[in-house]
Amino acid sequence: MVPITLTTDFGTRDAYVAVMKGVITRIYSDVSFIDITHEVSPQDVRATAFLLWSALPYFRVDSIHVVVVDPGVGTPRRAIAAWTPWGTLIGPDNGVFSYVWETAHPTFMVSLDDVDGHLPFVSGTFHGRDIFAPVAAHIARGVPMRDLGTQIHDAMRLPTPALEASANRLAGEILYIDGFGNAIASIGRLLWEEGQVRLAPAFGSASAYTFDPAKLKVRVGTRDGTMHDLGALRYTYADAAPGEPLALVGSSGMLEIAINRGHAASELGLAIGDKVEILS
Amino acid sequence: MVPITLTTDFGTRDAYVAVMKGVITRIYSDVSFIDITHEVSPQDVRATAFLLWSALPYFRVDSIHVVVVDPGVGTPRRAIAAWTPWGTLIGPDNGVFSYVWETAHPTFMVSLDDVDGHLPFVSGTFHGRDIFAPVAAHIARGVPMRDLGTQIHDAMRLPTPALEASANRLAGEILYIDGFGNAIASIGRLLWEEGQVRLAPAFGSASAYTFDPAKLKVRVGTRDGTMHDLGALRYTYADAAPGEPLALVGSSGMLEIAINRGHAASELGLAIGDKVEILS
Amino acid sequence: MVPITLTTDFGTRDAYVAVMKGVITRIYSDVSFIDITHEVSPQDVRATAFLLWSALPYFRVDSIHVVVVDPGVGTPRRAIAAWTPWGTLIGPDNGVFSYVWETAHPTFMVSLDDVDGHLPFVSGTFHGRDIFAPVAAHIARGVPMRDLGTQIHDAMRLPTPALEASANRLAGEILYIDGFGNAIASIGRLLWEEGQVRLAPAFGSASAYTFDPAKLKVRVGTRDGTMHDLGALRYTYADAAPGEPLALVGSSGMLEIAINRGHAASELGLAIGDKVEILS
Repeated sequence: MVPITLTTDFGTRDAYVAVMKGVITRIYSDVSFIDITHEVSPQDVRATAFLLWSALPYFRVDSIHVVVVDPGVGTPRRAIAAWTPWGTLIGPDNGVFSYVWETAHPTFMVSLDDVDGHLPFVSGTFHGRDIFAPVAAHIARGVPMRDLGTQIHDAMRLPTPALEASANRLAGEILYIDGFGNAIASIGRLLWEEGQVRLAPAFGSASAYTFDPAKLKVRVGTRDGTMHDLGALRYTYADAAPGEPLALVGSSGMLEIAINRGHAASELGLAIGDKVEILS
Repeated sequence: MVPITLTTDFGTRDAYVAVMKGVITRIYSDVSFIDITHEVSPQDVRATAFLLWSALPYFRVDSIHVVVVDPGVGTPRRAIAAWTPWGTLIGPDNGVFSYVWETAHPTFMVSLDDVDGHLPFVSGTFHGRDIFAPVAAHIARGVPMRDLGTQIHDAMRLPTPALEASANRLAGEILYIDGFGNAIASIGRLLWEEGQVRLAPAFGSASAYTFDPAKLKVRVGTRDGTMHDLGALRYTYADAAPGEPLALVGSSGMLEIAINRGHAASELGLAIGDKVEILS
Repeated sequence: MVPITLTTDFGTRDAYVAVMKGVITRIYSDVSFIDITHEVSPQDVRATAFLLWSALPYFRVDSIHVVVVDPGVGTPRRAIAAWTPWGTLIGPDNGVFSYVWETAHPTFMVSLDDVDGHLPFVSGTFHGRDIFAPVAAHIARGVPMRDLGTQIHDAMRLPTPALEASANRLAGEILYIDGFGNAIASIGRLLWEEGQVRLAPAFGSASAYTFDPAKLKVRVGTRDGTMHDLGALRYTYADAAPGEPLALVGSSGMLEIAINRGHAASELGLAIGDKVEILS
């Protein structure tokens, strides 16, 4: 069975996600679905870009990843498909795959402009059902990607997440706030190695280097000018007292700001784009 | 694998849906589940009827659709199964399949009164687990429907959704409000064809006809007497400014009232049953 | 296909659950997933223990049940796997399986301390991905449990749920409050048999006995000292008027306190641990 993942902002209250699965299985039914999430904040392309970057490396490389976070549905924005080392990607050309492409460069891309791969009637409001789902099914059943559209060589990209590294300072920004209120920053990937922490940069051109977690200080500045000092890097949530803010290496290897048994984003007033620093 | 869809008002916080899947796979495991939704407003038979009508045409016709929105569980209301051109339906006899039957007439129906098809002990509170799930599994493994109960020739029906069509006026009512606050009316199906819009009536006895979308006006009247004018029919959400109300052909082909990047139902005060008109 | 169920407190807004499924299918893909729930109250081990106890008997005995409700992630608490008559259990050693073990005693248990069964890099924050998911996949593909860790003979246990039975009184406590606000007590299992109700004790050492449902009275005492009298045992929700509190045998066979079309827990002020009595 071909694994097909689905990532949307449709919620789970209506039948929209199920209809996409119905369309896929009418065309090709030897698939297995994994829902990544359907609760992306409506039309939040940047959060989706982070989610995909953090999740896709854990899936089989023969997976087909269908993404429908699409503020421009019905406008002339392109629909695209791409081969990458992290699987086949299908979705709108609005930057949603940008962070994946920072690491897993697309090796072949098409604009999905061949209407034979779409449902016979394409609505102005639901390309998930009318374009992305049938294209995913056709790719799953072995139709070559080049038969589904015109090859392209560029696609829309969001700016590379900020990551500055100098001798005694790492600086970045908050990229994502998860459902527990943990704020995930662009500083990473960080690896604990024999009591030291090594930076293996996920984004941009910074160099790898190693530092002593006991000697550093993490801080984050919010939009209203408040600066929160989080002390040294901890290993896990339980290393802080309940209610205490902390910084640790999150499960995606990135610097994460959390409160043990609390909701850091609301309690500290954190937002996407806030500046985060590690000083040593 | 036999596709089995599930539609309930159980929510996803407890184990109720999973228990139904467990029961099915203990009897017959060569099935694939698709959740349509488990977040129907509690006991809202009419909203469920619309959801099923909008979703079921997109599924394989060998699908088994299990529906448990069942205010009368434990009372003498019947449990039923039906063959239709849109698949096999299983659920309570409370009108939940009414709108499906407007288009996809049942060709064979039974009252599920043969206890051999149920779990050995049937509770007064959870027929989804005790009756509907095992019946679905038996049908999936090939038990003839007539072995699961007594043939019936009628079932409970909700009134046909309102749809009046005259020379210069289409009138209907709001049937469903989706999770984004978009209000879907009984006026449809509407098809864009070469700049014109054609009505191919989904419900009732209205005739097909074609009209000019630029020359018409859409309006909706709420319970407190307010009348909202929505102007001409737009093609997609982005054809209105952010925050602006609009009317368009929704993804199910029905007239839909929306606010671009807003929540029309709460901002305009719309409710199920409100009257909607297209005037030309 | 091997059935794998997942029970977590991760929610469905982020990619955490999907990443666990990705990890499993990279190791062994001939599995079918059933989500029990991902909306356990954060870190609520006791509610999870009840959920598993109520749900697991309905699944195939070759199922693998993966549970990640894990306040102690990253601390030295053990990760365990166990064979039971209700399937294979995998999760943290924090009591989450206690209620299952009241009925379905583990026949073999290991501490999952063999790092060959884990992902190569184990984080301090996401053992669901790094330990529990790969272990589930290895068990699904046939690796013997003893190759994944060290055999153990005890595991953490929550206290047995209270259930006292004397000649004219059954006493217990509220174990779980479901998403509809129904409060499920430790008094059961109760079976309707020819107009009588039989107690077949689910927990502890009480003896079976039979009583007349019309002659008994149910009551519950809340923390602020209020005592709610619920009258005799009803058969189903609709046996009470809308808005009226009632007691009935819930779908898990346990005494349940509900309000017909209402939310008993909030309207009556009920909480986990409140004392419930049946007096005859």
